[in-house]
Amino acid sequence: MADARVRLGMVGGGQGAFIGGVHRIAARIDDRYELVAGALSSKPDVAKASADELHIAPDRSYASYEEMFAAEAKREDGIEAVAIVTPNHMHFPVAKAALEAGINVICDKPVTRTLEEALELEQICAKSDAFFALTHNYSAYPLVRYAREMVERGDLGQVRLVQVEYPQEWLTQAPEEDNKQAAWRTDPKRSGKAGCLGDIGTHAFQLATFISQLELDSVSADLTAFVPGRAVDDNVHAMMRFKGGAKGMLWTSQIAPGCENGLKIRIFGDKAGLEWAQEKPNELWLTPLAGHHQRITRRDDNIDSDIATRGIRIPFGHPEGYLEAFATLYTDVADVLVAKRKGEQHPIESWIPGIETGVLGMRFIEAVLNSSEADGRWTPLVS
Amino acid sequence: MADARVRLGMVGGGQGAFIGGVHRIAARIDDRYELVAGALSSKPDVAKASADELHIAPDRSYASYEEMFAAEAKREDGIEAVAIVTPNHMHFPVAKAALEAGINVICDKPVTRTLEEALELEQICAKSDAFFALTHNYSAYPLVRYAREMVERGDLGQVRLVQVEYPQEWLTQAPEEDNKQAAWRTDPKRSGKAGCLGDIGTHAFQLATFISQLELDSVSADLTAFVPGRAVDDNVHAMMRFKGGAKGMLWTSQIAPGCENGLKIRIFGDKAGLEWAQEKPNELWLTPLAGHHQRITRRDDNIDSDIATRGIRIPFGHPEGYLEAFATLYTDVADVLVAKRKGEQHPIESWIPGIETGVLGMRFIEAVLNSSEADGRWTPLVS
Amino acid sequence: MADARVRLGMVGGGQGAFIGGVHRIAARIDDRYELVAGALSSKPDVAKASADELHIAPDRSYASYEEMFAAEAKREDGIEAVAIVTPNHMHFPVAKAALEAGINVICDKPVTRTLEEALELEQICAKSDAFFALTHNYSAYPLVRYAREMVERGDLGQVRLVQVEYPQEWLTQAPEEDNKQAAWRTDPKRSGKAGCLGDIGTHAFQLATFISQLELDSVSADLTAFVPGRAVDDNVHAMMRFKGGAKGMLWTSQIAPGCENGLKIRIFGDKAGLEWAQEKPNELWLTPLAGHHQRITRRDDNIDSDIATRGIRIPFGHPEGYLEAFATLYTDVADVLVAKRKGEQHPIESWIPGIETGVLGMRFIEAVLNSSEADGRWTPLVS
Amino acid sequence: MADARVRLGMVGGGQGAFIGGVHRIAARIDDRYELVAGALSSKPDVAKASADELHIAPDRSYASYEEMFAAEAKREDGIEAVAIVTPNHMHFPVAKAALEAGINVICDKPVTRTLEEALELEQICAKSDAFFALTHNYSAYPLVRYAREMVERGDLGQVRLVQVEYPQEWLTQAPEEDNKQAAWRTDPKRSGKAGCLGDIGTHAFQLATFISQLELDSVSADLTAFVPGRAVDDNVHAMMRFKGGAKGMLWTSQIAPGCENGLKIRIFGDKAGLEWAQEKPNELWLTPLAGHHQRITRRDDNIDSDIATRGIRIPFGHPEGYLEAFATLYTDVADVLVAKRKGEQHPIESWIPGIETGVLGMRFIEAVLNSSEADGRWTPLVS
Repeated sequence: MADARVRLGMVGGGQGAFIGGVHRIAARIDDRYELVAGALSSKPDVAKASADELHIAPDRSYASYEEMFAAEAKREDGIEAVAIVTPNHMHFPVAKAALEAGINVICDKPVTRTLEEALELEQICAKSDAFFALTHNYSAYPLVRYAREMVERGDLGQVRLVQVEYPQEWLTQAPEEDNKQAAWRTDPKRSGKAGCLGDIGTHAFQLATFISQLELDSVSADLTAFVPGRAVDDNVHAMMRFKGGAKGMLWTSQIAPGCENGLKIRIFGDKAGLEWAQEKPNELWLTPLAGHHQRITRRDDNIDSDIATRGIRIPFGHPEGYLEAFATLYTDVADVLVAKRKGEQHPIESWIPGIETGVLGMRFIEAVLNSSEADGRWTPLVS
Repeated sequence: MADARVRLGMVGGGQGAFIGGVHRIAARIDDRYELVAGALSSKPDVAKASADELHIAPDRSYASYEEMFAAEAKREDGIEAVAIVTPNHMHFPVAKAALEAGINVICDKPVTRTLEEALELEQICAKSDAFFALTHNYSAYPLVRYAREMVERGDLGQVRLVQVEYPQEWLTQAPEEDNKQAAWRTDPKRSGKAGCLGDIGTHAFQLATFISQLELDSVSADLTAFVPGRAVDDNVHAMMRFKGGAKGMLWTSQIAPGCENGLKIRIFGDKAGLEWAQEKPNELWLTPLAGHHQRITRRDDNIDSDIATRGIRIPFGHPEGYLEAFATLYTDVADVLVAKRKGEQHPIESWIPGIETGVLGMRFIEAVLNSSEADGRWTPLVS
Repeated sequence: MADARVRLGMVGGGQGAFIGGVHRIAARIDDRYELVAGALSSKPDVAKASADELHIAPDRSYASYEEMFAAEAKREDGIEAVAIVTPNHMHFPVAKAALEAGINVICDKPVTRTLEEALELEQICAKSDAFFALTHNYSAYPLVRYAREMVERGDLGQVRLVQVEYPQEWLTQAPEEDNKQAAWRTDPKRSGKAGCLGDIGTHAFQLATFISQLELDSVSADLTAFVPGRAVDDNVHAMMRFKGGAKGMLWTSQIAPGCENGLKIRIFGDKAGLEWAQEKPNELWLTPLAGHHQRITRRDDNIDSDIATRGIRIPFGHPEGYLEAFATLYTDVADVLVAKRKGEQHPIESWIPGIETGVLGMRFIEAVLNSSEADGRWTPLVS
Repeated sequence: MADARVRLGMVGGGQGAFIGGVHRIAARIDDRYELVAGALSSKPDVAKASADELHIAPDRSYASYEEMFAAEAKREDGIEAVAIVTPNHMHFPVAKAALEAGINVICDKPVTRTLEEALELEQICAKSDAFFALTHNYSAYPLVRYAREMVERGDLGQVRLVQVEYPQEWLTQAPEEDNKQAAWRTDPKRSGKAGCLGDIGTHAFQLATFISQLELDSVSADLTAFVPGRAVDDNVHAMMRFKGGAKGMLWTSQIAPGCENGLKIRIFGDKAGLEWAQEKPNELWLTPLAGHHQRITRRDDNIDSDIATRGIRIPFGHPEGYLEAFATLYTDVADVLVAKRKGEQHPIESWIPGIETGVLGMRFIEAVLNSSEADGRWTPLVS
C-alpha cells in the first residue's frame, strides 16, 4: 500500500512563512504524502534549518527550485509533485520549471502575478503531461461541494443572483514594519497590481463561479486603498453580470474591523436560496420558496453526494475546519496522481481547480482593475 | 393629563390594507393618540365599515380627505394630525392639503411618487406651521439610535465603509392577481418608477445615512426586473461614494428566496465596526480592532443614551420588535406635538425623519434610476 | 361593532409598578378593551394620579377593589372583566371577590400565594359563571402554540424528554433597597415561599406541560438561596418524571450573569426533536431523525395551524415579541368574553390557561419545595 | 531536530474502528510522532492489512500488545509511547502492561471499565516512570483552556453554578445489528455498566471540573434506558453539589434527535458568566454583570494566555475543530516526552488529563450509578 503516498517537494515555506505550514499540515492529515525534498528559502541558513525541522534529508534540501528539479529528476525516488508556496511573483517561474520537468504541481493562488503569465502557463500546461492543481481550498469544503451539486441538480431553479463577500480586518491600520505577511501582500512587485483583490478577492470569485457554475460576462468595480500610503487596493466593491442574465455583487476588504475571515456566499434562484459562510463551514442553508429554512449539516444520511462526503472524516457534530478542507484538496490531488501512475483518470479530477480556474481568476482581476480605472465602466472579461 | 393624547385622523388604511393597521397599532401602544376621524377608503362601503370597526363616530368618517380636513377644521375638537397610509401616489396631494390646512402630518414612505413632488412638498412644509414626520420606522429602533450615537461620539473612528442590504423574497414569482399589496407596489402609476428601490431600498438608504451621518456624493447602480412582465425593478445593486471619501454598497431585492425582511447594516471605521440586523433588532454588534466582539443588548445600564432608551418599554431579554419601534416613532411625534401646543420644541424632534429625509430619499431614487439607465455611470445626487 | 370591545377594570398597576403597564399595552394592541375603571393603588394619591394618566374617569377610580366591584356592579356600563396585577398575595382575595361578583378575571401568575388558596379559588370558579384567565403569556406565542400542535399530531413520535430552563441574572447580587420589583419578589409574605421558583419557575413548568401535554408524576429538586440573606430560593434544580415514562429537567435561576430572560425548551421524541427560546420567539426548530434541521419561522404558508397564526399581525421577518404575545392572550380572552355575551363558547377557550393551570402550578411549587426540603426525594404532585 | 518526534505504537484501531483513526490524524497534524509499531487488531488479517495501510513495517505489526511491548523493548529504536484505542474493557490490561514495561501511555477514555481497575492503575502509575495521558480531548480546545484561566484569575467572581450538557441523537433508535460502534458501546461487558454515562457523560464531567476547578461533593441522578432492550443507560439526568457550595446540573443523552455532538457548558459566578459549546469551538462567551456580552474568538492579541494560544495554528476566522484540539493534546504529550528524555518537566504537563482525572471520572460514574439505583439519593463520590 506504500504507493498510496505521493513523494512531495516544496518551494517556499521556510521558517517564518505562513501558508507553507498550512500546506504541510494539509498533506499530512490523510497521510497521502511524504515530504522528501525542498527549496524552502532563498536564504541558505533558513533553508537548512527549515529542512531539518521537517525531517528532510540534508542532501534533498536545495538552494533553489532549479537545483531541486534537476537533482530530483535523476533519482528513482525523486519527487512526483511540488507544492509552490512562495509569494505570488515566484509562482510562474517555479510552476513553469516544474511542468517542463514533468513534475506535478500544487500551486497556491493566485496562479501568477499577471494575466500574461497565466496565459503562458496555460500553454505550458497544455503541452505537459504533469497535473496542475491550484489550491482554492475553500471550494473543497464538503458543504461547498454539496452546494454546487444542489445548484446543478436544480434545487434552486434558475439562478438569478450571486452575492459573495470576503471581508477581513487585519490590514485596517498600516502594519508594523516587520509584518512579513503584510509586507509582501501590499507590495505590487511581489503580489501583483491587485492587493486585497488578488489575495482574497480571487477566492471569493472562485467560490462564486465554482458553486453557481455561471460564466462572468462583465464587471463594474470601484477599488480603494483606504490606508494612507498603501500601494494596492484594500477594499473592492464590484457588481457582476453573468452570461444568461444572472447578476451579483462582490465585496472584499481587508479594512473591516470585526470581520475575521468572512468569506460568505448567497445564491438565489427562482425556487430557492442557499447560504454558506466559511466561519461556520459545517452548515449550509437552503430555503425553498415554499418550505422551512433548512440548516444542512454533515449528518451523513442527509448528504446524498459522494463528492461532498469524501471530505468528511469524523461524525457530524465534530467540527472540521479550514485545515481539513485544505487536506481534502491535497488528498484529491493524491488520488489523481496515484491513478495517473497507472494511466488512469480519477473522477475527482474535475472538482480540483486547475489552470483554467487560475487563468479565469487572472482575467477577473484584470477586468476589475480595468473597470475601476475606467471609473466603473462595465468591463467584459479580457479574452 | 388628557392633553397627553393627540387627536388623529387617517387617510387610507381601510379594510384589506396593510400598513394602516400597523400605524394604528403603533399609535395605540403607548396610548398617545385618539383616532377620531378618517377617510379610510375611496369606496364608501369600505370606508363606513372600516370606521365602524375602528370606533370612529359615523359623522367623522369622511368620503374624502378634502372633506375631512374641511370639516375637522371647524370643530373645536378637530384632528391635530393626520396619518397618511395610502399607496404612494396619494401621499403628495393629501400631505399638501393637510399642511395647507395646518394639520400635522405623519406620512408613510416614500414621501411622494416623484422628486418634483417632494421638492414642492418641501416648499409647502417651509411655509406651514404644521409638523411633518415620515415613518422611516427602522431608524426608531433603540439600538439603531444607539448605533448613530456611537458613530457620532467616535467609537468607530473615521467611517470608511457602509454596507447595507435589504433583501426580501415575497415577489420571487409573479404574484397572484388578487394580491393587492403586490399589485400597487409593482404598478408605476401608483408606486412610482422605482419598484423594490422605492418600496424598501429607500429604507435601506435612510438607515445607512441616519446611522453613519454621511452625505452621499454619487452612486453607480444596476437595476433589474427579473420576473417576466414586471414593470419595475425587483433587484437593485448599487455602489456608493460618500463625501469625505467613505464608500459603500447597497443591495435590495424582492426576489431572494429565504430572505424574509433582511434589512441589515454594517459600518466600518478605522477603529471599530458595527452591525445591526432588523430581524434581530434587540442586539447590536460592536467590535473594536483591539477587543472582543461585543453583543450589545437592551440591558439598561449598558446603553448610556437617553435617546436610545426612551424606546425601551420592558426589561432586557423581553424581545420588542417592529411594532414597538413604529410605536416609538409615533410617541416621538406625540411628544413633539404636545410640546408644540405650548409653543415649545421637544428635543426628540431632530431624531424624527422629516421632509428633508423624504427629499433626500427621492434624490437617491432619481440618481439610482439615472445611473442604471446610463449603464452604471457614477451619478451625483440630483440637486 | 362597538361590542367587540370589553370594558375592563384593573386592580394594582399604579405608577411605579411593572406588570400593570404590560397588561395595559397588551389590552390596547388589538383594540379589544376599554380601560374604564381601576383600583390602581392602595395609596390614594398614587391611585388618583395613575387613573388620570390612564384617562380613567375620576368617579371610576376607586380606593379599593371591593369598592370598585360594588360600584361597577350597579352601572349599566360597568366593567365586564378585571385585570389583577398586584403582588402575588393579593391575587386570591381580589379574584375571589370578582368571581363572586360575576366579573370575569384576567389574573397575573402565579395564581395565588399558596396551594390552599388555589384550591379554594378552583371551587369558587366552579360555582361562578365568570371566566378566569391566567396570564401565562409565553404560551401565547404563535410558535409555542404551533409546537404544541406538532407534538399533538405526532411529529415528534413518542415524547421521551422535556428539558426546560429559565435563567435570569437580575438578582445575582443583593438588590438596592429601593428596588420595588426585587423587594416584593424576595419577600415570602408577599410572593409566597417560592422565590425564583414562583416568579419564573412556574412559567417554565407551564410551558413544558403546555407544549408536551405530559402529566407530571413526581419531582426531585434542589433549591438554593445563593445570595446571603435572601429569604427565598434564587436557583432551582429539578429532575422530573412524567406519567407514561417521559423524563425531564428544569432549571431556573435569577443569579446567572449573562442570562437575560432565557426561557428555553427542548422536547425530544423517538422521531424528532424541537427547540424554542423566548429570546428568539419568531423561530422554532424541528429536527426529524432523518432530515435536516428545520428553522420554522412565521412564514404564513408554512404554519398549517389556525390557532398559531391567529397571533400573527405582521408579515414574516417583521419581529413580534413579548408584548404581542401578551396581547394575543388578551385578545383571546376578549373573543371568549364577546362570545359569552351571546351565550356562545369560543374555540380558543381551551388554549387559554385557566384555574386548572393555576392549581397545577401551585401543586408543582409545593412538590418542588417538599422535595427540596426532603433532600431531593422524588415527590409526587400533591393531590 | 529529528528528536522532536516520538516513536509511537498503537493497540487497537485496525480497519473498521473509529477512534484509532482520530488518534492517528491527531498524531500527524503537528508532525510530532512516528507511528512505527502496532497491535492493531485481534484478527491477524485485519492487523496485517491495517499495518500495511499505515506504512508500519511488517515486522513491527504484532499479534498482541504483549508481543509488541516485549519486542519493542529489545529494539534501540523501540516505541516510546503507546496509544490505546481499544474498546473500554481492554484499556486496563494494555495500560498496565505498558506502564510496567516503562512505555508511556496515551489512553482513550474512560480510563478503565471499573473503578477498581482505575484505582489499581493509579497504583501502577505511581510506581512507574512512564507518563500516562488520558485523551479527554475537549479540554484541549484553546478557548476551553482560556475559560479555565478566566475562572482561575477570578473573572467570574465566586463560582456558583455549573450547567453542563452533552446530548447526541445517534442511538435514538435501536441500531442496526452491524453497527460496530453502537454494539460495543451498549454492551456492558465491553463498555462497563455505564452506557451513555461512560461514553460521553465522563467527557461532560471532566470538562466541568477542568474549567471550574471545583471538587464534586455529591450527586443525585436518574438514569434511563429509553430504547427497548438496551442494557445500559442512554439518558442521564444528574444534579451536582460541589465542595464550597456551588451546584450544577449535568444532562447527557444519546437519544435526543437534532443534537449532534452537543457538549456545552455554562458557568456562573457572582460577577460574570461564561459559555462554550463544542460545536462552535472557536468562540467563548463571557458576560460580566455590568458590561456587554463578549464573544471571544481566537484573535491572538485578545487571548492573554500562552497555554491557550499554544493550540492555535492558523489565524482567527480560519476555523479549527475537533481534530486540531485532539492534535494539541498529542503535541502536548510529545512536548512532555521530549522534555522527559532530558530529565526535564514541561510546564504543559499539568494541563494534560492523567490518571487522577481517570480515577475521578470512574468515581463519578460509580456515584451516579449508585445514586440512580438508590432512586436519586444524594451520593458522595466513592473514596
